[in-house]
Amino acid sequence: MNHKNAPKSVVRRLPVYLRILDNLIRNDVEIISSKELSDETGFTAEQIRKDLAFFGAFGTRGTGYNTSFLREQILRIIGLDDQTNIVVVGAGHLGTALIRYNVTKNPYVNVVAAFDIDPAVIGEKILDVEVMPISEMKKVVDTYTVKVAVLTVPSEQAQAAVEKIVENGINVIFNFAPTKLRVPEGVYVHNADLSIELQSLIYYATAEKEKTF
Amino acid sequence: MNHKNAPKSVVRRLPVYLRILDNLIRNDVEIISSKELSDETGFTAEQIRKDLAFFGAFGTRGTGYNTSFLREQILRIIGLDDQTNIVVVGAGHLGTALIRYNVTKNPYVNVVAAFDIDPAVIGEKILDVEVMPISEMKKVVDTYTVKVAVLTVPSEQAQAAVEKIVENGINVIFNFAPTKLRVPEGVYVHNADLSIELQSLIYYATAEKEKTF
Repeated sequence: MNHKNAPKSVVRRLPVYLRILDNLIRNDVEIISSKELSDETGFTAEQIRKDLAFFGAFGTRGTGYNTSFLREQILRIIGLDDQTNIVVVGAGHLGTALIRYNVTKNPYVNVVAAFDIDPAVIGEKILDVEVMPISEMKKVVDTYTVKVAVLTVPSEQAQAAVEKIVENGINVIFNFAPTKLRVPEGVYVHNADLSIELQSLIYYATAEKEKTF
Repeated sequence: MNHKNAPKSVVRRLPVYLRILDNLIRNDVEIISSKELSDETGFTAEQIRKDLAFFGAFGTRGTGYNTSFLREQILRIIGLDDQTNIVVVGAGHLGTALIRYNVTKNPYVNVVAAFDIDPAVIGEKILDVEVMPISEMKKVVDTYTVKVAVLTVPSEQAQAAVEKIVENGINVIFNFAPTKLRVPEGVYVHNADLSIELQSLIYYATAEKEKTF
């Protein structure tokens, strides 16, 4: 089965399905229809059927999807069979916040280390994650088979940091620095573009106003 | 023109077009084709034509879009005609990071205040943004016609905080707390679900590995 060219929008929805399946399985639900998945996700049933059909035939017409089977398939497709080890590069406010509030609430992902260049924070712990010097990154990547780096350094340090990350063998980067990174072919950078999300929200603020006044 | 029911995915792409148009205009580019917009955005030309056609006929067949005209239209559709005033609720690591690195890099959005319940941070400044007590929120909302609140408090405080926000007249919330918020009808909550984004990235890490080994 070749699904390497799945559209980004489809890949982005897979963990949403996964989260819902995890909940359903916790509540002993064995079968779910695309209509019910639609109610849970807000995506249309047609979209859901198309998304899943991209990777194979996982449902039974007229019945729906077996929740455990579908969950296993999505884990396999994403590559989440095991706990995935990641690192956070930049232990400032953003890196600290991500480790504390968001990243660690993730059942499939494990932050094995944070890295920083500031001697003042090296050796500190954020929850149980140690802040290490960049020089330790190679060892950590090799020991824990780290697959993804979350990049939370200031913009002006981002390019240098990403070069270190790639040099140390990490090919997928979740970039929070609001700057465009130059990376070699084969390296995948995903920009967490919070400005773009924020701007799109204004649409709802204005629409709301027009509806109310 | 009724565009209140534009799909979220379309609304989400509007600021991406806007950013590209801003760049093009800065470089004195007057006309752009959907093909060229496709090269810049990574969305298909067909997707771009469909997105824009949702709101009206902005292009000329065989020529493309006038960059200034399209920019004006997108500003109007989103409701970004003026600088939009927002507040950040929660002046901890995440709120501080968002004010410092991301939100303030936004040409269309202006953070007028941050709010917190911790007396230790009230009165502090994050760049030029003052941290105020929640009791000041109503005055700030009224004075600056605040349209959006960015919610960056810990999960266990998020529901109480969102109730205050809604009570003070803000109907659009960009929620970073990894928790589901209960809000009255007419209030729009957008969850910045970084876990979901992170999980979807693992897909690329695994795909890359399979390609390489």
